[in-house]
Amino acid sequence: MTQIPSPETLQRMASVVGPQGMLSAEADKAPYLKEWRGLWTGETPIVLRPQSTDEVSRLLTIAHDTETVIVPQSGNTGLVGGQIPNNGEVLLSLDRMTRIINVDATDFTLTTEAGATLKSIQDAAESVDRLFPLSLASEGTCRIGGNLSTNAGGLNVLAYGNTRDLCLGLEVVLADGRVLNMLKTLRKDNTGYDLKNMFIGAEGTLGIITAASLKLVPRPRRYDTILVAVPNPAAALDLLSAARDASGNRVLAFELIPEIGVQFTVKHMHTRRAVETLAPWYVLFEMADVAEGVADTVLEAALESGSVLDGVTAQSETQRRELWALRENMSESQKFEGGSIKHDVSVPVSKLPQFIAEATTAVETFMPGVRVCCFGHMGDGNMHFNVSQPIGMDKQAYLAKWHAMNRVVHDIVMKLDGSFSAEHGIGILKREDMQRYKSAIELDVMRSLKHVLDPKNILSPGRVLP
Amino acid sequence: MTQIPSPETLQRMASVVGPQGMLSAEADKAPYLKEWRGLWTGETPIVLRPQSTDEVSRLLTIAHDTETVIVPQSGNTGLVGGQIPNNGEVLLSLDRMTRIINVDATDFTLTTEAGATLKSIQDAAESVDRLFPLSLASEGTCRIGGNLSTNAGGLNVLAYGNTRDLCLGLEVVLADGRVLNMLKTLRKDNTGYDLKNMFIGAEGTLGIITAASLKLVPRPRRYDTILVAVPNPAAALDLLSAARDASGNRVLAFELIPEIGVQFTVKHMHTRRAVETLAPWYVLFEMADVAEGVADTVLEAALESGSVLDGVTAQSETQRRELWALRENMSESQKFEGGSIKHDVSVPVSKLPQFIAEATTAVETFMPGVRVCCFGHMGDGNMHFNVSQPIGMDKQAYLAKWHAMNRVVHDIVMKLDGSFSAEHGIGILKREDMQRYKSAIELDVMRSLKHVLDPKNILSPGRVLP
Repeated sequence: MTQIPSPETLQRMASVVGPQGMLSAEADKAPYLKEWRGLWTGETPIVLRPQSTDEVSRLLTIAHDTETVIVPQSGNTGLVGGQIPNNGEVLLSLDRMTRIINVDATDFTLTTEAGATLKSIQDAAESVDRLFPLSLASEGTCRIGGNLSTNAGGLNVLAYGNTRDLCLGLEVVLADGRVLNMLKTLRKDNTGYDLKNMFIGAEGTLGIITAASLKLVPRPRRYDTILVAVPNPAAALDLLSAARDASGNRVLAFELIPEIGVQFTVKHMHTRRAVETLAPWYVLFEMADVAEGVADTVLEAALESGSVLDGVTAQSETQRRELWALRENMSESQKFEGGSIKHDVSVPVSKLPQFIAEATTAVETFMPGVRVCCFGHMGDGNMHFNVSQPIGMDKQAYLAKWHAMNRVVHDIVMKLDGSFSAEHGIGILKREDMQRYKSAIELDVMRSLKHVLDPKNILSPGRVLP
Repeated sequence: MTQIPSPETLQRMASVVGPQGMLSAEADKAPYLKEWRGLWTGETPIVLRPQSTDEVSRLLTIAHDTETVIVPQSGNTGLVGGQIPNNGEVLLSLDRMTRIINVDATDFTLTTEAGATLKSIQDAAESVDRLFPLSLASEGTCRIGGNLSTNAGGLNVLAYGNTRDLCLGLEVVLADGRVLNMLKTLRKDNTGYDLKNMFIGAEGTLGIITAASLKLVPRPRRYDTILVAVPNPAAALDLLSAARDASGNRVLAFELIPEIGVQFTVKHMHTRRAVETLAPWYVLFEMADVAEGVADTVLEAALESGSVLDGVTAQSETQRRELWALRENMSESQKFEGGSIKHDVSVPVSKLPQFIAEATTAVETFMPGVRVCCFGHMGDGNMHFNVSQPIGMDKQAYLAKWHAMNRVVHDIVMKLDGSFSAEHGIGILKREDMQRYKSAIELDVMRSLKHVLDPKNILSPGRVLP
């Protein structure tokens, strides 16, 4: 258990950030201590809110000196518990470091402090007629430092990659307070080891990201947004290949949706059922800047081959929004159906049909009456394999089966050369999976890295590594 | 200086690979010991040519045990000397590990041993109607392990990224012989620290890449290939922004070419001068799968605004090849003009005009009479700023100024937040630049990584780190 920092240590830290930069009253700290799905609630002696990289550096120098544990927090939208401090862990929030330092339309780059919300970065890019293509449900609240630290994915990975792929440079404060400035905006730079990517996806355990340079792309001028009914996931894969090919790789998103998910959103979120044909599965996909007629050609060929049963194309931005609402309301709608045990997994794209079939059978065997709502980023092989409780079962009794059901699903995922955490990371939720599924050599190299960069184990200890 | 391995050690290593897997006669070793531009010639007691990851693992176990220095070599096309062994260093070539393990059109992935040539990988992708988009001059000879170890760039980085961006998974043999198997083909996998990217671009100094999983993309169905005359680099940048925007980010390549480069290729390579208008600069750019008419619209707008003076569009694959020949012959043509001092540098795209102007003035001041031939990947901010000797000067006397001239150019590059090695890496050629231009903190973290992964310093010592 972490030692509570001494009053002297807390006083030294407080003097770095000043009265405006710290919170110690319970009511003020509360919003930082509650995970938004309600799975974790933490405690901390103090919330530190530095205003500059220099302040972060001075805080970590003190922490290193005094062996005080620091838990960095970004927008507090993480789904694996890593951002919630416990016991004596000091919370360090970057929510006052929100300045967008530079936007350059010619360079297609943006440089920002780590506390800027994803939405503010998207807006800054749009203000110079560019797109920052990272897009996910929490974009109004999450902050880029957290997106980077968890290598966030989201809706448009198929076209633009994960957050890692969108990052050109980083500024990181190391565990001992030294500042590693790698804030370049270069497309090519082969000068020594790639330090940047060590910190991306490390969930704040190797250093604290304080600023980043990001790639921008041209803003799409025209979208084709299409919802289709398909007979099965294999047919959806045929459609994906055909669409990628015909569009010259301009498929931005390709989302699989199950009939039960449509029922949930229609019932609870009052979303309109946009395709009349009832089918076991649907796909919502979007292409950008392809020539007029390409979408129709793809759709007609798919209808003819039978890989698509019916389809509707958005004829306006309003209709486009309406189609997307069906997908975007999917997570929220499940809350009305009682407990939901989540799996954020990926497999090679070609193995998705096998994964869905095997995992569905396995959880239905594990607990008869569960309702599988498997949806998500088919183009990336990434499914949110969510399992709603049997109707009438006690919610807490159901959620108590979380890890046991995870085991059933993750064993299948790993058999298929997949990942037990595609997007959300490890945090504290999936540490045991790391132990079970990662090779001893991988874990050993990861521990060596942690030891080199944080020898006193003061940055979010107990997260990521088992 | 490296110790010559004992006969016993060499015997142990030889017994791992067998008689077919080793070369010890001088004539047999010679092709592995000469760098192709003629800047370095090395020596080695033995060339080891293992046939499997297991053999590599056993060789490194012996090397670690006996503190024998190993220099891995791929296609021997590197430009910074890292692949050439000296004194007692044992050369380990992967040129017998050329098997393409799997190609999957549905997954858009390819898994291969590290010794496969880039060309064989491109061909394997094409055989299933996919594209592996890495493309560079030495593609018939270079091998993917070397491409990964140097994070190779090439012609289509603007659209598809560097080799790093095209890699999904790696198998690496560590310095102590342990095998780190991370051969996944997943698009999303956030399970712990990103170990893969440490080895990409590490030039074989942290581990030996033995296999890789790679991303494929749809094959372009249609190209627009255009050569234009432009009044200056700033005008070329305007054209780049306009083309990226109008094409929906489908500009694959955007290459700047100077008039002197055209003169060299016309004179020595008998390339046809495809644009009649004489201008100080030209741009060869290519877009893929954009709608008919987009290229004409871009070109007409640029002619009207004055950012383009004249232009020619390829009307057939033959013409396309002819336009590309102009660019592809640029390096070779300089050989006929005597010594050429090379700079492989990048700056933020928007600063390219300033860089070209300042660096040209600086080298002309440094040595009157030099002829700057600056060309390359403008879309990535990456210029090959090559400087041909004054006419009539002694070649060796000129080349003796290599490092001194580098210093002049690299100082300007770094002032503009650029990179002194955009594509080619560090090897032994640019170690002093690492010392001069990298921060002490960066170097310190890099050295820590090296020490953790190769504590006995047996993998290509003296490369990358100063």
